Amino acid sequence: MTVNRAFRLRRRPSGALASGDLELVDEPVADLEDGQALVRTLLLSLDPTNRIWMSDMRGYMPPVPLDDVMRGLGVGEVIASRRDDLPVGALVTGWTGWQELCVADDARLDAPFSVLPDPLPGPMTAFLGALGHTGITAYIGVDLGRVQEGDTVVVSAAAGAVGSIAGQLAKARGARVVGVAGGPEKARHVVQVLGFDECVDHRAPDWREQLDAATPDGIDVDFENVGGAIMDHVLMRLNVGARVVLCGMISQYNASGHGTDWAGQVNIGQLIMQRATMEGFLVLDHVDRFEEAIGALAGLLAAGRLHYAETVLEDGLAGAPDALAALFAGTNTGKLVLRVAEGMAR
Amino acid sequence: MTVNRAFRLRRRPSGALASGDLELVDEPVADLEDGQALVRTLLLSLDPTNRIWMSDMRGYMPPVPLDDVMRGLGVGEVIASRRDDLPVGALVTGWTGWQELCVADDARLDAPFSVLPDPLPGPMTAFLGALGHTGITAYIGVDLGRVQEGDTVVVSAAAGAVGSIAGQLAKARGARVVGVAGGPEKARHVVQVLGFDECVDHRAPDWREQLDAATPDGIDVDFENVGGAIMDHVLMRLNVGARVVLCGMISQYNASGHGTDWAGQVNIGQLIMQRATMEGFLVLDHVDRFEEAIGALAGLLAAGRLHYAETVLEDGLAGAPDALAALFAGTNTGKLVLRVAEGMAR
Repeated sequence: MTVNRAFRLRRRPSGALASGDLELVDEPVADLEDGQALVRTLLLSLDPTNRIWMSDMRGYMPPVPLDDVMRGLGVGEVIASRRDDLPVGALVTGWTGWQELCVADDARLDAPFSVLPDPLPGPMTAFLGALGHTGITAYIGVDLGRVQEGDTVVVSAAAGAVGSIAGQLAKARGARVVGVAGGPEKARHVVQVLGFDECVDHRAPDWREQLDAATPDGIDVDFENVGGAIMDHVLMRLNVGARVVLCGMISQYNASGHGTDWAGQVNIGQLIMQRATMEGFLVLDHVDRFEEAIGALAGLLAAGRLHYAETVLEDGLAGAPDALAALFAGTNTGKLVLRVAEGMAR
Repeated sequence: MTVNRAFRLRRRPSGALASGDLELVDEPVADLEDGQALVRTLLLSLDPTNRIWMSDMRGYMPPVPLDDVMRGLGVGEVIASRRDDLPVGALVTGWTGWQELCVADDARLDAPFSVLPDPLPGPMTAFLGALGHTGITAYIGVDLGRVQEGDTVVVSAAAGAVGSIAGQLAKARGARVVGVAGGPEKARHVVQVLGFDECVDHRAPDWREQLDAATPDGIDVDFENVGGAIMDHVLMRLNVGARVVLCGMISQYNASGHGTDWAGQVNIGQLIMQRATMEGFLVLDHVDRFEEAIGALAGLLAAGRLHYAETVLEDGLAGAPDALAALFAGTNTGKLVLRVAEGMAR
């Protein structure tokens, strides 16, 4: 009998994820039927949106039902198959969930898997990062922000998986790019490795003055990943006709969302004063542009014009909750990935 | 010697306008020079934005300098002239300021006056309301919101000068229109006179449930004049692809704007979840469309398809501060106008 190990959601977290919200269980896997394949999870992607899926806040997808396996994106390998499109040995990316084994059922259209190219044009981890959903998110967002040569672009969570790519794409369009990141090491990384023009450490007591000094001509585009006080300060520096691209508001996801522990954005009225737009987007709405995006990202990567950082935790599936906590604490630089298992030699 | 009476701004208000912020002074008017005309203020427009101009918050125009005459839009008549384009007897609309007499100087391009048609195609007061800047604001905002047949549109401050027109324009486009107004009388007026489908009284304890019941299919367009808790609730009911047109946030203008007495918008993150846009606008950016807008509004008015309410206070110039307070208290229905003087018989 094949045994799977999985995290099931037992309780919706209140604030940060706590012990008891998820339970790690061992459970048998039924024999495969026609149209099914068995995928072993190799890598699991940790994303701020994981926390949204656990809550019952109104999101872009239904919450993970209580007692279901926690939803997640990953890279896996097919270890058994009764499905022609997923042969044994293929590397795939898709909705593995927070579990070691996943039945990929072709009847489940809401949870598709894609086979990765063979040989891989980059490291496997990149397909959860720069060449995966986070890189594509950055690409779409920079495009929605209509970033142009000469614009001043601010990117929050600049050392994060999406922000790090977004800033480089804005640079490639000829913009002046100012990052905001937590801590002097991240800020240095953003400027010296990623090539942003400047990066403000929002943990410095004078971060407001730093941000003002770094944006002497105001701000044309805000690529927003965080929300909260930093975003409010950015709003006060928008130029007429500015664009705020709302990619994420990680500062809010652990809050209850109803005015109790989340103070809210104070300076939204500046959108009127500066005749500015704010647009929320989700990468899943832009599937028709994935090929274009991956092509552009892979091209920049091959030309040495796209740098990405990743933090790969080697803790196995059991480390997933701590990995998510690390993401919210901001201790990672770049894309955060958890290695669940080693793949077959290839 | 001609004597003018004027309100000068002596102090920036903290919170609501208080005694001592403005001073009513009598002062001599210098003899006219070439290129100048003397305009007697007949009507003064009271608008939420007046409060913005008094503060030093970052706005779309410079704040009124301390000790200057308070800025304001009005209708006046030319009583003396050394300017060919403004003959004696002409009715004009423009930046009269909060004063009885105004020197209209053709060198001051930032403060133009327009001569009204003779004979007037509607009541004089309408040129500060439905056929003036507030009507045009509603017209531009409904257009920016891309209101379409079958949309559900929510209009806050629905009994106010802009909201009342915006809702009727949305109805004319075939939308289901739900107003939000303060008090049962206003709510009745909005439905029975203005023809909105429903109107929620936000002073009722169950306003949230009322708003939910009035928008069973969610909200496609929010024509936002108020901000605050109502807007946060509306954000939670946005449909995918919704448009928030930010026309005003009157709930915020008396606040300090930096998180002390203004809690902020809690649910901005819903713009991501619903892939929605929020756009701030100012009518002054759309001067090239004023003629189109006035034509459309006058056409609807003539056809009996546009109703407007106005409150004309007969208190003379000295009543201006109380009139502004009444606007923020919401005791007026429709456009609030102050009669400063009777015009010549015409």
